Amino acid sequence: MPRVGVIGGGQLARMMVPEALELGIDLHVLAESDDSPASISATAVGDYRDEAMVLAFARTVDVVTFDHEHVPQGVLRALEAEGIAVRPGPDALLYAQDKILMRRRLQELGLPVPDWATVANADELAAFLADHGGVGVVKTSRGGYDGKGVRVVRSAGEVDDWFAAAADGDGPELLVEELVNFRRELAQLVARRPSGDIAAWPVVETVQKDGVCAEVIAPARGASGRIAEVAERIAVAVAEGLGVTGVLAVELFETDDDRILINELAMRPHNSGHWTQNGSVTSQFEQHVRAVLDLPLGATAPVAEWSVMVNVLGGPTDGSALVDHYPAMLAQHPAAKMHAYGKTPRPGRKLGHVNVVGDDLDEVVYAARAAAAFFTTL
Amino acid sequence: MPRVGVIGGGQLARMMVPEALELGIDLHVLAESDDSPASISATAVGDYRDEAMVLAFARTVDVVTFDHEHVPQGVLRALEAEGIAVRPGPDALLYAQDKILMRRRLQELGLPVPDWATVANADELAAFLADHGGVGVVKTSRGGYDGKGVRVVRSAGEVDDWFAAAADGDGPELLVEELVNFRRELAQLVARRPSGDIAAWPVVETVQKDGVCAEVIAPARGASGRIAEVAERIAVAVAEGLGVTGVLAVELFETDDDRILINELAMRPHNSGHWTQNGSVTSQFEQHVRAVLDLPLGATAPVAEWSVMVNVLGGPTDGSALVDHYPAMLAQHPAAKMHAYGKTPRPGRKLGHVNVVGDDLDEVVYAARAAAAFFTTL
Repeated sequence: MPRVGVIGGGQLARMMVPEALELGIDLHVLAESDDSPASISATAVGDYRDEAMVLAFARTVDVVTFDHEHVPQGVLRALEAEGIAVRPGPDALLYAQDKILMRRRLQELGLPVPDWATVANADELAAFLADHGGVGVVKTSRGGYDGKGVRVVRSAGEVDDWFAAAADGDGPELLVEELVNFRRELAQLVARRPSGDIAAWPVVETVQKDGVCAEVIAPARGASGRIAEVAERIAVAVAEGLGVTGVLAVELFETDDDRILINELAMRPHNSGHWTQNGSVTSQFEQHVRAVLDLPLGATAPVAEWSVMVNVLGGPTDGSALVDHYPAMLAQHPAAKMHAYGKTPRPGRKLGHVNVVGDDLDEVVYAARAAAAFFTTL
Repeated sequence: MPRVGVIGGGQLARMMVPEALELGIDLHVLAESDDSPASISATAVGDYRDEAMVLAFARTVDVVTFDHEHVPQGVLRALEAEGIAVRPGPDALLYAQDKILMRRRLQELGLPVPDWATVANADELAAFLADHGGVGVVKTSRGGYDGKGVRVVRSAGEVDDWFAAAADGDGPELLVEELVNFRRELAQLVARRPSGDIAAWPVVETVQKDGVCAEVIAPARGASGRIAEVAERIAVAVAEGLGVTGVLAVELFETDDDRILINELAMRPHNSGHWTQNGSVTSQFEQHVRAVLDLPLGATAPVAEWSVMVNVLGGPTDGSALVDHYPAMLAQHPAAKMHAYGKTPRPGRKLGHVNVVGDDLDEVVYAARAAAAFFTTL
């Protein structure tokens, strides 16, 4: 039986467990702690930056994949040097780890990105702002996540702390991007096998709150024609151009002036694809397992007209657990599908999500939001 | 977090694991062996007939349920005596364990069963055969499973071995049933909470080969009207009349003369409900976990017009594993959903099943059969 090793024991690894189990494929997880979301499949607990630890884990599996993109290049290269299959590989992950390298590569590939520049000091930033209406989005090249490492600035002095850290070698390099005037945000999910086949799900609409994904509507409203085609073409070009294997999520802006621009990439199952667990013939987690094993990819058709995913963020603040709210929530929303990550509530933390699938968008949106709202005590 | 304990580590326990994990509910399994299908969640390994072993396991969970109906009444009563929630309870399971008690109770409830009688010797059997066209189906009251403990007889001497064993106290009592001339076999699945709510899936059509379920078509063809209503009414009456909690499967005959008769019962998730994993808003495994925890039941609507399940029986005889056939199968059937039980191939053994869901029955049946056929080397 082929054995897949996942580095990182977060909710993405957790949600691969059911899919691997149903396929009869062994999944082993290198988790950060004993009580990680994926602990049911954790065969090792340790630091993903520890080369010896990761190597020892990787030698017990047939292919290594990831819950996150943070494994250092040195560790990834050491795995490859031992002949271990790493999917996605270090050459691809480099672009997910460094936003400057990523934007350079996307431009080389002729793919649409917002205007951007690297900036090393306030003068360079001031020049960029002057050219872009006095506003820009400064991002750290590395370490950004769920809105962290991102600041919208209207004056060049607002990121002096980051410039100082970068100059001292204590912080990552910085880039600045134009503040895109967008109508909405989209995400295009695809999966690619090492042998080259690609499967795409329908493009979806994502709603962010405070830099964190709050809600996904699949497919994106009114996106059956040109937008869907363009989004898919972009994601396929990214997957092929960057040599991604497994699931790739491409976050996109649909601009006020009708352009589709690439915002960010994720080379793993992604929050924008959680709807596929109940809304698609093949979920992103099953597809990721199949892709990294170089098995044929599954059908990506939706099972209904609409799927809506709403995140459960933060959770109850009264000390109750998610499950304490199940009797009320499940009674009112019998078609809502709960996905809990086994985490303790904490402000802003992703604790789970609710999927609802159906043919009437208004009803589906209402049920998903109302069901998720049971888990937030205001 | 509530904790569900499952006695028995077979494929039914295995398929509860993903559903409990997504709901964020702890599932513990008392398995028969270290390599049981549900080993990922096994917290104890031992004999389900060993009262001390089962009690020790049950004390670690909030509610006990089952992968099979074989736990002895003495053990079940000992759990209840300790105040442990047992679902379904011993009073209900008694009827699943003893076909004579079950038929008596169903008749008391006024529910339709084939003509039957207990028989203690060849003379009694001969009398029954003479009244029923010279043919009958003899069944052992206990221990029957997947066609075992069942013989179609045309002469009273054909079960002398069973009569001798019963007379010596070495074998179970016997009953004989009329051989029902049926058009087809149906199965009606429902789930019932301790607090009384019941949810029913659409009635399905089952195809048996050599006494073992081979294929399920959901819903049963042409069963939108009277047949569906009658089947549901019967299963609800059985669930309430026998006090079943959790999932109940009622196997039915649709006779040549347009009657619906009860064939057998199962008080647990059942092969006839595996289609719900991909074909229903709520799978039988999720519903069982919800029901035994007395949580509100989920919607049972189909997600498409048709779902077909085909069992993978026996498996390859050339020493290959199921997974060796995935590249060919998955490439040809991208919409087929594989469910493997983690068992070694052996003639007649249930190793897994394939579900296919869609709106064109001919296509769905073809794909499910063709996909499952990849795993049988003739």
